Parts: sequence; C-alpha cells; structure tokens
Amino acid sequence: MVGIKYEDFLDTSYEPVDDELVCRFRIQPASDMTVEDAASRVASESSNGTWAELQVDGEVRDLSATAFDIDVEETDAAGGDPAEIAVAYPDALFEPGNMAQVLSCIAGNIMGMKAVDRIRLVDCTWPEPLATSFAGPLFGSSVREEFFDAGDRPILATVPKPKVGLTTDQHVQVGYDAWTGGLDLLKDDENLTDQSFNPFQERLTESFAARDRAQEETGEPKSYLINVTADANTMLDRVDDVAAAGGEYVMVDVITTGWAAVQSVRERCERHGMAIHAHRAMHAAFDRLPEHGVSMRVLAQIARLCGVDQIHTGTADLGKLENEDTYGINEWLAGDLHGLNDVLPTASGGLHPGLMPELLDRLGTNLCIQAGGGVHGHPDGTHAGAKAFRAAVEAAAEGVPLEERARDHPDLETAIEMWGTETPR
Amino acid sequence: MVGIKYEDFLDTSYEPVDDELVCRFRIQPASDMTVEDAASRVASESSNGTWAELQVDGEVRDLSATAFDIDVEETDAAGGDPAEIAVAYPDALFEPGNMAQVLSCIAGNIMGMKAVDRIRLVDCTWPEPLATSFAGPLFGSSVREEFFDAGDRPILATVPKPKVGLTTDQHVQVGYDAWTGGLDLLKDDENLTDQSFNPFQERLTESFAARDRAQEETGEPKSYLINVTADANTMLDRVDDVAAAGGEYVMVDVITTGWAAVQSVRERCERHGMAIHAHRAMHAAFDRLPEHGVSMRVLAQIARLCGVDQIHTGTADLGKLENEDTYGINEWLAGDLHGLNDVLPTASGGLHPGLMPELLDRLGTNLCIQAGGGVHGHPDGTHAGAKAFRAAVEAAAEGVPLEERARDHPDLETAIEMWGTETPR
Repeated sequence: MVGIKYEDFLDTSYEPVDDELVCRFRIQPASDMTVEDAASRVASESSNGTWAELQVDGEVRDLSATAFDIDVEETDAAGGDPAEIAVAYPDALFEPGNMAQVLSCIAGNIMGMKAVDRIRLVDCTWPEPLATSFAGPLFGSSVREEFFDAGDRPILATVPKPKVGLTTDQHVQVGYDAWTGGLDLLKDDENLTDQSFNPFQERLTESFAARDRAQEETGEPKSYLINVTADANTMLDRVDDVAAAGGEYVMVDVITTGWAAVQSVRERCERHGMAIHAHRAMHAAFDRLPEHGVSMRVLAQIARLCGVDQIHTGTADLGKLENEDTYGINEWLAGDLHGLNDVLPTASGGLHPGLMPELLDRLGTNLCIQAGGGVHGHPDGTHAGAKAFRAAVEAAAEGVPLEERARDHPDLETAIEMWGTETPR
Repeated sequence: MVGIKYEDFLDTSYEPVDDELVCRFRIQPASDMTVEDAASRVASESSNGTWAELQVDGEVRDLSATAFDIDVEETDAAGGDPAEIAVAYPDALFEPGNMAQVLSCIAGNIMGMKAVDRIRLVDCTWPEPLATSFAGPLFGSSVREEFFDAGDRPILATVPKPKVGLTTDQHVQVGYDAWTGGLDLLKDDENLTDQSFNPFQERLTESFAARDRAQEETGEPKSYLINVTADANTMLDRVDDVAAAGGEYVMVDVITTGWAAVQSVRERCERHGMAIHAHRAMHAAFDRLPEHGVSMRVLAQIARLCGVDQIHTGTADLGKLENEDTYGINEWLAGDLHGLNDVLPTASGGLHPGLMPELLDRLGTNLCIQAGGGVHGHPDGTHAGAKAFRAAVEAAAEGVPLEERARDHPDLETAIEMWGTETPR
C-alpha cells in the first residue's frame, strides 16, 4: 500500500495538553503488527486518519490524535504482545455535548480494526471544555436529601418479582407493602415498560396514589422509579406524564435506549426538576470480557456526563451478576469532574438482608440499595421483607451486628434464618 | 438458596408457537453448571425470573420464556461445555414497537450472569406481531430507483478524507469533484457532525448548493448522506433542516446514538419522505469476539426493524475492517420479514477500484459501495478517483474485465497501477 504514514500519529514521549481527551486502551496487536504500529493506527482511525496519503493543509495536523505512553506487557500468547496505550484527542475533534459523536471517535471503527485482535477502552480522563459541554446530573447523590429523609443510611429500593407478569393491581400492592414496610423507592424492572398485563398509564396513576397513601401512613417521603424506556419521542412524553403524576424520578435502560435519547431525557427532566435512575441492562455485552470492548468504568463516566443521577455499578461481588471494579467506579462517580454533580451508585442483583453489613462495609452508605427476591421472597411476604431489609441496613449503617438487631426484629430474624449470608448464583 | 426452580424455564422438546420470538444463544456455562442449568437461567432472567420462590397467580407462567433445542458442543476447554441453545419468548413479554425494551429482555442482564462465562445472542427469528409493530424501512433498496438513475449497478458513495479536519469549503469541493466524477452520494464520516472547523448548518447549505450544480452539469441525480447524529432533540431538528435544504437522506451513527433515537428519527423522516443511512461505528465493541455479545446479524435485524434504509455490513473480507457473515446478513436484509421493506447493504472500509470485480462477484449489485481513500488517494485527485471508481463498478457490473475497460479509461488505469487488487491493513 502506497502512502501510509501512520507514524504521524505516534509520539511516545508526548505530553497531552490540558484540553485534550486522554483515553487509555488495552490492545492486542494483530500477529504481524508491532505495538507501536497498532497504537498509531488506533490514533489515526479514531481521529482524522485514512489509509491513503493525502494533500492536506496546515489545519489538519491539529486534529490528529496522538498515541503515547505505551506499556507493553510480557506474554506467551500468540500474536503481538498486549499493551496498554494512551491516546490524546484534541478538543476540536469533538462536537460539544454530543456523546454519540464522542463515542464514534473513541470507541467506533477502532473496535473492529484488523490491526488489533482485541481492543478495550479502559478509562478516560475528561478535560474541562468537553466535560462541561455536557449537562451532568441535575441532582446526583443530593437526591438523598432532596427527595428523602434517610439520614446517613443508604436509600432503599425494591423491584416487584416476578420481573414481569404481575398485573397493575398486584404490582401496586407490592409497592405499597414495600413502602409501608420501610423502603424509600419502588422500582420497575428493566423489561417492564408498557405491556398489556401492566400498562404504563394505569401503573403510573395507581402507583402514585398508593405512594401518597404510604407517605401519609408512614410520615416518610417515598418515591417511584418508573421505567419510561421507549423510542425517544414516546419516552419524552412519558417523562411529562410522570411529572404530571407528581413523580420525582424516571428510570431509563440507558444502554438499550442509547445516549442520544438519554441526553434529551435529561434536558426534559430539568424542566420538571426530576431525577434519572439509570439501569444498565446490556452493559455486559461489551464490558464483560476484560480484553475487549468498553469498560463499565467508561460507561459510568458517560452516564455521569449525560446526566443520570443514579446508576447500577454492581455489588462488589456480593450479588448474582458478574461485576468489575465497583469500588473504583463508585469512587470516580463521587469525585470531582470539573464541577459536574456526582452520581449516586446503586447496588443490586441477588442482595438480601444478611449481606447488608458486608455490603456497607465494602461500599459505604452514600448508596442506593435495591433488593427484589431478597424482599419479596421473605416467608412472611413483601411487607415483612421490607421491614427486614430496612432493619438490616439501619443496623449495618449504625454498626450494630445483625444478630443483635434481630432480637428486637422478628422479620429480620426470619430473613437471616432463611438466607443467611449466602451469595446466590 | 431456597426456592429456586429454574427447571420451570426449560423444556428440551418445546415447540415454539407462531407469535413467539425465538432467540439463539451460544453459551459457555460457568464451570459448576450444566448446560441445562445455564440455559434455564438464561430463559428465566430474560423473562420473568427471580432467584427466590414466589407466590404468583396463573397469569405469570404464560410470560415465562422457555429454553429448548440445546445443542452441546464437545470441547476440551475448562468449564462447562459450550452449547447453542434456543429460547422462545411469549409475545406478551414485549411492548410493541419498543426496541430498547426488547433488547433489555433478550440481551440485557443475561449478558452479565454468573451462570454463564460467555453468552452471545447469535440470531433471532422475529414473529409477525412483534416485527410488524416496528416501522421497518420507508424505502430500503428502492432508494436506488426513487432517488437515483443507476440502472443495474450499485450506487456509489465517498467520504472525504481526512475523516475530519477539512474546512466546509474543502469538504464541499471534495463532494463536488466526486459527484461530477460520477459518484451518486457524498457521505459524511462517522465522527463529523457539527464541529467548529466544519459546522453543520454551513455544510448543509453549501453541500446542497454544490449538489444542485453537479446534478445540472452531469444530468444525473445526486444526493448527500449528511450526519445528523446528536442528542435526540437536536437530531430531530437536524432532520428537519436537511428536509428544508432539499435532502433525500440523513445519516445516523446508529449504535452510538442508540435505537430509541433512531426510531424517532425514522418517524420524523417519514414526514419528509427521507431515507436513513446507518453507520455502525461501535458495533465491534460487542460483536467482534465470536463467543460473547450480540452478533452483527442481530444488529442488522434490529436496524431493519427500526427502519434504516441502508446499513454497513462489511466487505466480505476485502476491506480493512474485521467482518463476519456479510453474505448471510445481506441475504437476510433482502429476504422477507412479514412485509417490511428490505435494507440496502453498504460495503465500505479500505475499498478501491481494483477490488470491484471481486466485491460484486461476492455481494452482487443490489448494493451501496463506499470508498474514501480509494477515491481521494488517486494520484490525480478526487475527480479522477471518482471516475476510476465509477468505471470500475460499471465494468464489474457488466462483466467486463478491468484491464479491458482501463484501456479507454486512463483514470482507471492509473488507479489499478497504484493500488492493484491488494487489500489494505
């Protein structure tokens, strides 16, 4: 091939400037490629590269990404040595506030390049101009004070089980039992939206009526994470509907929905003063295998930039789903990002009361905790399960051993007898 | 764990009924799981499953998915034996016309389940009620007759190179040179949207002015695939802008944008009688590794249901990107889908004139072909490169050897001298 000058995209001693987006990739070069060749091709294809030499003017070089900081790992595997590389992207490459465009650069065609057998976007360092071109969360972890009165304990949510199939009446009854048992949030499951067995409008109306009753009876603020996931226009209508019903939150399956619609939901929610709960169903399609795809850490970063207030980040290996780096992600979500609000992490998937001391020990109390089967599977039903869950979390937050608290809380005692501290598979 | 009854979701001799969505997965069970256990958990978690036993009423069982048709592969690998399984999902599980919701079922949490070490959604068979709840393409391959006058040859597109960095004037000039050289379509690159060096509105206005001149000079219809990718609301505004400028198409980075916004773009495009060109940047983040994620075949199916008219499906291994199953996908896109329109496949990535006979031999002529560097890298520039590309495709479509055609086409001769029939890396 004539004219390839990929070395223009490589400068191993490069020092990125302040406004550049720096992405760290882990790459496995193709068997006939050096790490340097592969790294320069990653930088080329994700910025202004092409495989043919071109006559271009002075401006063009300013838009090239630069590969640097190449750290080769020793390996016995076939093919080139895997390596971690960094790529710096000039700010002018990106359209401000357009996440789909950013992703088409940094996680687009390069994921399929023949020059690499594997490539994973591991981490990003977001510069101030690009980061602040996004809205970020309207509330973040301040939802705990804005919407609830939970003090220092995590806020607590439950999803009715089975995931789908309950009628609206049954679903609302589960919510009422959970709220009055002491939970803060009812949450829809990720595949419940507007089906004939439980239509969205009916569920919306009846759930908020039950929520109001539960608030009155308990004297505590309660809320509902209703799943508005749909095509973008329908979703925005549903956001308006939730606001009209007096809701504080919408829930969105952010990965299956896509960031373009999430950004527009964020904009619409600001109009109503509402928060976004992000479910991450499908993330594992591209973050599960450690050598390829996009890491959950980067997905969480994207979610924060696009403005979700709460997101599932795993259970630090206590639950039923495969997790990675819950600690590191939660720390990042709580840290500074050029003044954007933080995000409240949500732990869910196979949790039950017996796991609460260990969970809070691992992840702290600035958290939303969600339990489904671990509430409704209680032998005495959802209401008792909610009481046990609340008691367990309060005990854990106060540093009181569960066994001690259980002496005064028969529902908690029953829960511990049933589940112990076992992690489900 | 008490109460798990995953076997309720397994029936190896099950025969799916007509309105069920049947998904084929390839799974690698966790090392302590049988294939049957893992398969039943996949069906459970992606329908109404939970890990605790519940009191439920009669309706619930009707919403369970059923795993069947389990085909275990022999293997020496550690862990359980990999297997291909099928799962049948009752129609009532799905919200009609809501792709995000469908994906949250069939490719959601199950991608991260501990019960499987790997899981890939390989193929879907879409039943009539679910398929026809989606809009499908407004045009599909009829764009070839609706918008162009290309006869039996593929329609031809080019992306200015470098990918980004050209000013608007430079970008428009490249388009003009390509159109007047014989190409049908100018196409934006996947990471060009609205950046300061080439703003969307300016590019839109100037490109369509140049398009009109090129049409007049050549006497041939020409069009422009302008990238409207952005947050959903901005994108819908851009769709309207393209319609107002006289456009026939919008281009969307469908994966980085997400299906929720794509569906709303499809709805808006119908209002204007406009087609959608789908770029698939980021697909390889979850379809590249054969053992995990979601296959490109399924992504192409989703794109058709959501209503894109053209989509990139690879070059059948002639180009620079890793491909899989271009033949099978193109065949599916052309086949019957309960009356929905077909989709015109687009071949792109590292193509040049010398590869055209082989490309048409592999993929036929009902195709859009895109070449970037293979046009602009021509030693005599874009206009000559476009002429060479057009001549090569016409020769290939007519069955005339390139060498023979090149005798009367010096630009094609130059292109063959430069690139030969080599596949770039």
